[in-house]
Amino acid sequence: MSDVAVIGASMTKFGQRDAWIQELLAEAGEQCLDDADVAPHELEHLYVSNMASGEFEGQTGVPNALAHDLAAMPAYTQRVDQTSSSGGAGIYAAWQSIASGASEMTMLVGGEKMTHRTTGEATDVIASLTHPVEYKQGVTLPSFAGLTARLYLDRFDAPRESLGKVAVKNHKNGVRNPHAQFQKEVDLETVLDSPIVADPLRLYDFCPITDGSAALLFCPAEKASQYTDEYAVISGIGGATDTHVVHERADPTTMGGVVESSNQAYEMAGLDPDDVDVAELHDMFTILEFLQMEGLGFAPKGEAWKEMDKGTTGIDGDRPINTSGGLKSKGHPLGASGVAQGYEIYKQVVGEAGDRQVDADVGLACNVGGFGNCVTTAIMEGRR
Amino acid sequence: MSDVAVIGASMTKFGQRDAWIQELLAEAGEQCLDDADVAPHELEHLYVSNMASGEFEGQTGVPNALAHDLAAMPAYTQRVDQTSSSGGAGIYAAWQSIASGASEMTMLVGGEKMTHRTTGEATDVIASLTHPVEYKQGVTLPSFAGLTARLYLDRFDAPRESLGKVAVKNHKNGVRNPHAQFQKEVDLETVLDSPIVADPLRLYDFCPITDGSAALLFCPAEKASQYTDEYAVISGIGGATDTHVVHERADPTTMGGVVESSNQAYEMAGLDPDDVDVAELHDMFTILEFLQMEGLGFAPKGEAWKEMDKGTTGIDGDRPINTSGGLKSKGHPLGASGVAQGYEIYKQVVGEAGDRQVDADVGLACNVGGFGNCVTTAIMEGRR
Repeated sequence: MSDVAVIGASMTKFGQRDAWIQELLAEAGEQCLDDADVAPHELEHLYVSNMASGEFEGQTGVPNALAHDLAAMPAYTQRVDQTSSSGGAGIYAAWQSIASGASEMTMLVGGEKMTHRTTGEATDVIASLTHPVEYKQGVTLPSFAGLTARLYLDRFDAPRESLGKVAVKNHKNGVRNPHAQFQKEVDLETVLDSPIVADPLRLYDFCPITDGSAALLFCPAEKASQYTDEYAVISGIGGATDTHVVHERADPTTMGGVVESSNQAYEMAGLDPDDVDVAELHDMFTILEFLQMEGLGFAPKGEAWKEMDKGTTGIDGDRPINTSGGLKSKGHPLGASGVAQGYEIYKQVVGEAGDRQVDADVGLACNVGGFGNCVTTAIMEGRR
Repeated sequence: MSDVAVIGASMTKFGQRDAWIQELLAEAGEQCLDDADVAPHELEHLYVSNMASGEFEGQTGVPNALAHDLAAMPAYTQRVDQTSSSGGAGIYAAWQSIASGASEMTMLVGGEKMTHRTTGEATDVIASLTHPVEYKQGVTLPSFAGLTARLYLDRFDAPRESLGKVAVKNHKNGVRNPHAQFQKEVDLETVLDSPIVADPLRLYDFCPITDGSAALLFCPAEKASQYTDEYAVISGIGGATDTHVVHERADPTTMGGVVESSNQAYEMAGLDPDDVDVAELHDMFTILEFLQMEGLGFAPKGEAWKEMDKGTTGIDGDRPINTSGGLKSKGHPLGASGVAQGYEIYKQVVGEAGDRQVDADVGLACNVGGFGNCVTTAIMEGRR
């Protein structure tokens, strides 16, 4: 098995974009090839992380369209869908393509075009990923978030403000990210006074609907130095499911897929949670940042909110979380989000994160599908 | 890199099924686990080949639903979409999962539920896989088939009857396949007198719209004998794209993706086309069987129709093609088709093909996305 390196990364501006999925994917794909100075004909495999171009735009076959637009034929291409964790699943697929020897140069491009649809339409598409016994009753992901947040606050005596502080922190980080949808700070009062969506969660506890794309370029680690002096290796990776029916979980405040996938990644990397210097977590809802911190071993059960209060997770803290702004302020174009997490971790561990740079040799990205129904965790280490 | 074995296979009855995608996938998945006597908790990765459950049924997240229905949690799961070649792409993904060491027990389940939609609705979904510059002009896959068939017949002095004979052969094979949608022979006169769809092709030159599912179970070859005395190894596999815009091809009668993907597979296996004893080709349209035979090296350019006339490809011929009945009579539930090709080749090389059994140590499956836009080729060899 080859060790797998990441030698290039790119992302488009996230937000409301006047471009279709095919254009967004091509934009990130071209930038990523440029970033590593790799020619399209060098690509052997090309993966596209995308949840729902057919449902959102009536367009399928987008991997073939991307191979066309990049002039990457005859590179093999395929779409990776794992709902909102399609990007993380794409990292896993790209890793497998190199580690198996099937490809020696693989690009992953994740993208989604959503903002041309109404919030209701987009929510309907996203809700279709949940189990029919739940969504046909009208139980959508935001409602799971509200129920779980209430349970968490009650059980662990956490103050409502701690959730709001996640939004404040991630918006603050997003100001430093030129690709973020919202480059705008919010104060705690604004978050706590915003309209209720799913009690106790309010508008600012939720990520927006977003258009955007991101890309990563992979090759065997032994070849990476041919392309660049600074690269990352994927030292650990894993993926796991939790129950598809959320109400079947013994404890909704434990994300089993986060625990299992990160255990796989830590074991492969030979690392412990304490070794992780920076992490991108899937803060589709503020409560998820706490649940993932605990599932990843960054905080004891029920105590992630205390780390938030202590400032551990701030960009100047001991272990910054969501330096990119997270899904909360960077935006959440479904298929792109996990790839953009990889982009941020790659940039941090190779020392190219600009205004957001923190001291990081080891970074971790955790991408969550559904309400933790399927999760991937990847650990990257910088090589300079 | 581990050699990859196939240790179990299953498929549901193909045709018009009173079951949703989730039920079809679970049916094939359960049968496949039973076939190899593997327990759900032994699964580490679970891939679902499916093109369009969202568009056909308004249901996404089907891999998570399948993990739930099989009680396979915490097995990692993901959807593989490569339009009509999603099944072949799934075989490639499953192969990579084992060969990379990511998983030691991977199940692939492919499926599609289509017949509840009208032919027009289904055609619209399928047409969305083509490039917008083509499909917005109304150029669908059947029209490409008609244009290419006309070119082939004219250029190579092939008789129209030779295409009809493909349909006759595959329907004859389908009679022996209890899973086939049409277990019914058709005579050449019926084919040639059937209604014109895309001149010169007529109704019986086309595969039907179908519901169904199929599954394959993979593990490292060194572990296969723990589960079964008779298994297959995937000795060669490859995937490649051709132009996404079909009219950009220098010669539409050459399927570049077939040539490239099979060259990869032959090289990996250390085999030549002459070594292949039996093959499943993607006869969505009769003309495609000829084009693939030539791309795979089974016949010189422009001469596949002569092999048809000589009977080489019949079930009693020197190299039987589509012993299963092919897409033509077995049916074409998009995401299932490539997996069902793998099912047939597996059954042939392990000697379990029942009434369809031919003398075969080496088998090949070629799965075509779009009009050859992306193709996978897999070679299996029996180990008994």
